[in-house]
Amino acid sequence: MSNVWDKYLAQHEAHFTNSIIRDLLRLTEQPSIISFAGGLPAPECFPAEELTAAAERILVENPLAALQYGPTEGYRPLRTFVTERAAQLGINATLDQVMITSGSQQALDLIGRRLIGPGDLIAVEDPTYLGALQSWYPRLPQYVTVPMDEHGMDVAALEQMLKRTRPTFLYIMPTFQNPTGVTLAEERRRDLIDVASRYELPIIEDDPYGDLFYDGERPRPLAALDVEKHGKLRTVVYISSFSKLLSPGLRVGWTAAPESMVSRLVQVKQGVDLHTSSLTQATVYEACRDGLLERHIPSIQNIYRRRRDAMLSSLAQHMPEGVRWTCPGGGMFVWLMLPPGLDALELFHEAIKHEVAFVPGTPFYANGGGGHAMRLNFSLPTAEQIEEGIARLGRSMRGKL
Amino acid sequence: MSNVWDKYLAQHEAHFTNSIIRDLLRLTEQPSIISFAGGLPAPECFPAEELTAAAERILVENPLAALQYGPTEGYRPLRTFVTERAAQLGINATLDQVMITSGSQQALDLIGRRLIGPGDLIAVEDPTYLGALQSWYPRLPQYVTVPMDEHGMDVAALEQMLKRTRPTFLYIMPTFQNPTGVTLAEERRRDLIDVASRYELPIIEDDPYGDLFYDGERPRPLAALDVEKHGKLRTVVYISSFSKLLSPGLRVGWTAAPESMVSRLVQVKQGVDLHTSSLTQATVYEACRDGLLERHIPSIQNIYRRRRDAMLSSLAQHMPEGVRWTCPGGGMFVWLMLPPGLDALELFHEAIKHEVAFVPGTPFYANGGGGHAMRLNFSLPTAEQIEEGIARLGRSMRGKL
Repeated sequence: MSNVWDKYLAQHEAHFTNSIIRDLLRLTEQPSIISFAGGLPAPECFPAEELTAAAERILVENPLAALQYGPTEGYRPLRTFVTERAAQLGINATLDQVMITSGSQQALDLIGRRLIGPGDLIAVEDPTYLGALQSWYPRLPQYVTVPMDEHGMDVAALEQMLKRTRPTFLYIMPTFQNPTGVTLAEERRRDLIDVASRYELPIIEDDPYGDLFYDGERPRPLAALDVEKHGKLRTVVYISSFSKLLSPGLRVGWTAAPESMVSRLVQVKQGVDLHTSSLTQATVYEACRDGLLERHIPSIQNIYRRRRDAMLSSLAQHMPEGVRWTCPGGGMFVWLMLPPGLDALELFHEAIKHEVAFVPGTPFYANGGGGHAMRLNFSLPTAEQIEEGIARLGRSMRGKL
Repeated sequence: MSNVWDKYLAQHEAHFTNSIIRDLLRLTEQPSIISFAGGLPAPECFPAEELTAAAERILVENPLAALQYGPTEGYRPLRTFVTERAAQLGINATLDQVMITSGSQQALDLIGRRLIGPGDLIAVEDPTYLGALQSWYPRLPQYVTVPMDEHGMDVAALEQMLKRTRPTFLYIMPTFQNPTGVTLAEERRRDLIDVASRYELPIIEDDPYGDLFYDGERPRPLAALDVEKHGKLRTVVYISSFSKLLSPGLRVGWTAAPESMVSRLVQVKQGVDLHTSSLTQATVYEACRDGLLERHIPSIQNIYRRRRDAMLSSLAQHMPEGVRWTCPGGGMFVWLMLPPGLDALELFHEAIKHEVAFVPGTPFYANGGGGHAMRLNFSLPTAEQIEEGIARLGRSMRGKL
């Protein structure tokens, strides 16, 4: 062996997996390829000037807040800001019910570490967010999946499942879901909170895209319905992030949850990274304190709405008969379902030849499936790139049909 | 139950522990108390102006590098810088052998998650860094401890131990150790690398304080001796950080290791937080690229050397007969050993009455012990505070003797 570590690495190898997406994405990195495969926000949506001014202000006026060690639960002014923002969404929470995380990905990780043991049963949508599955993979959970349609998770099917088995929690992204773009209907949200209350089912609500709505109003978080029903957060752990509103490179997310849950997650975080960067937390706070989000979110919505519309009209124009897709009211993704006889992974390699890329559906299914589906991102490419890319995708399909 | 999560939290409660230090530190937060209990760098050592200019430069000139998602292994220019810095220390490493972490604490966490399973045996110094023990606690390892004296770990005792049992790895902080301030002697370093090579013992070298030397030269890292012996990193995983040189609030650390180890830690980090903040990584790089560390480190050394000297002379003046302490050549801590009859935890409560605080030794011992010892920090308090605080500590001891 080339070094003394390999034998110990080999012992635990089976608990870790290489992301199929990471390997595929390497193929999409040539500049000639129009990629719908990523999940990146558009850089033109970053409020770079405001963030620069905010970073400069905190570093000059209060360098200690930006540069010294800070509390594990987060920079207090930012936590206070987050409780105000949560309250606007109907998620009334005390300061002890919110914490800052290193992106919302870290919240998933902390939850997995604190709550999931080998073989524990977790309920997820089918399909579900790949990053959650990757985060929890080393904890060796088992999954029970709940089917979805164009109105989101089938809550009646969930209730049938709960009569047979009791998962540790349900993980759900009810609003503009990654990967499908689908949103849980208002009535189903109420049903879900009723079912969860009756069966004492803990819910993790992952809501990174909720503010990115392009039609009508922002869907009400499950957490708000939980607060409405019980007077406080009782059933729902609510995970959110500044990644899609300000910048993902800052790695600042937040969680609102019952206090006993927050205190345990803070305990885990202490050993994980002590705390999220003081500089980035204070920068987010300084940028947001005077209402940046209210001013800035509409400009993101305008950019992404145009791109979503470009994707939907291009799909209508270029997709062969039998191909179906979702019509997301927000977020960053369209989910496309192929007709019988077309396999998304095979099509991926054909599409690369046509210089267009997407993510095949399989990795989003906790218990397998999804060979007929693909995820298309519309936040990063321009409308022109989207039109050309979807045309290429259509040609690559016709070559396979 | 007040919420639906508590029963699931209770199931895993035994895997997590509240830090005794966190509870004690709450007692030390009154402003009238002179605290030697923390482990904070002095804010006057933060190069705030340079970091402000660096953050502004990257945000204005290359906002994408600071604000977009980045690669899990780290911001490439910073990784390149880190390989150059490692090479200056004799740790020749390729780009694929270094990664950026969210502080060095995260490196400990990633290593624990990738390598430690329940019951696995880990070798540590006695005493050892509390943050490592806290980080690994949920992995349920067992520990075998190696005794130390004023020249660091007893390598002969380690070799005897290796004849009986084989730990997964040895964790060691050989330079200005937290908590003792002790440094492993040069000859023992060579012996340790010889022993580790003969017994194929993996070593984790944690080196957050190596550049903070106040007498003579920087001790050579074990990793440099490993490279010297094998032509490349083979035995040692080297963990370092910018926390003590620039600012801990940035949460930027780095690790150099055999490539197979780095690739596995990157794989774990992907699910943990995707990547360390792009803004803080790019800020560190922009600040350091023109030689800031070389200019700045001597000024930190001058401040801390004065404080160390103040602590050592105050101890000589105020400690009762029978009290002994270490004379650290660098770092941030002095380790103090009480005479028989004095218990550090009892003394802690007496000291609080005298308005001075320290950390009792017990939590630094993986397998118990340390009731006779305490850790004293000299980086944060001024020389005047140190003199007054040590006088108070002496009075609190006399009250107990």
